[in-house]
Amino acid sequence: MARLEFFFDLGSPYSYLAAHRLGHALSRHPVDWHPFLLGAVFKATGNRMPAATPAKGRYMLVDLHRQAARYGIPFAFPAAFPLNTLLSQRVLAATEPAKIASVSLLLYEAFWVRGEDISDPTVLAQLLGEEAVAAAAEPEAKDRLRATTDLAVSRGAFGAPTFFVGEQMYFGHDRLDEALEQLETD
Amino acid sequence: MARLEFFFDLGSPYSYLAAHRLGHALSRHPVDWHPFLLGAVFKATGNRMPAATPAKGRYMLVDLHRQAARYGIPFAFPAAFPLNTLLSQRVLAATEPAKIASVSLLLYEAFWVRGEDISDPTVLAQLLGEEAVAAAAEPEAKDRLRATTDLAVSRGAFGAPTFFVGEQMYFGHDRLDEALEQLETD
Repeated sequence: MARLEFFFDLGSPYSYLAAHRLGHALSRHPVDWHPFLLGAVFKATGNRMPAATPAKGRYMLVDLHRQAARYGIPFAFPAAFPLNTLLSQRVLAATEPAKIASVSLLLYEAFWVRGEDISDPTVLAQLLGEEAVAAAAEPEAKDRLRATTDLAVSRGAFGAPTFFVGEQMYFGHDRLDEALEQLETD
Repeated sequence: MARLEFFFDLGSPYSYLAAHRLGHALSRHPVDWHPFLLGAVFKATGNRMPAATPAKGRYMLVDLHRQAARYGIPFAFPAAFPLNTLLSQRVLAATEPAKIASVSLLLYEAFWVRGEDISDPTVLAQLLGEEAVAAAAEPEAKDRLRATTDLAVSRGAFGAPTFFVGEQMYFGHDRLDEALEQLETD
């Protein structure tokens, strides 16, 4: 059976909305969670974060609160945004695949609900233990994060969240429902 | 009763999708059609067209065909994209308000279905008559287009299509349904 591939970064608010839905309301669907590094995706593709355009950044805040309310998702825009996610994405890359979803949801909630600065190794260690942070410093974690990011870019990704169903790509939380429809028909 | 304000540019494919739906499937809703100049909006806000990022441009093509199919909207990506819309937007700005919707739909179909180059005054004259093209050269048309564009930017617009319901702004064809829901509750 086909699976949904979900490429995400903890610093991306629309990835948070998608992650929350996939982890809760939509949890019956088969999903592979692929942490990648959004900053590297932007660098590789020449794309940039929405907030790089101030008017778009202001609207994004309004839209995010609307979307969170629409889907019943707890949400508070964090003071520490934009977040450097290199360390936290490496932590996820070092996590065993079966636990990436639950660890991601835990970190998403820490940042996008409680506003904890998950770029800080001390905060990460409090949430996940010292070992998880230590594992992120290993070459395997760095290599895996880089490989996942490169793979996503080579398949056409330019932002987050990005979904694949087979070779069909879908960009943005807006297209999650369409990706899931495609999953049903595959 | 509240009305939907619809800011659009003929060169914007997602504006075309919204215009087609507002002109046909959603025609029962009260809509004010406001032609503005998307290039000037980008310049004023520092935003840029999606296709400025090549990977985003490639995905946009896929997404547009999907969205058009989803809503049953005829669509063929035109060779002349991106389009210089200064003249055609001035033509719309010179059109009497009650006819802006129908003239816009006519021009949208010429470009986004039949691929006619509506930046060409000869093509525009064939579609709308010489007088419509002449009116676009009048200071009133230029001033009105500039004023509409400036107003949209001052209210927070950074791209197209942009909708307002009262002071609530909605960006993108993706948010048309939400804007219409807001209209129902206002």
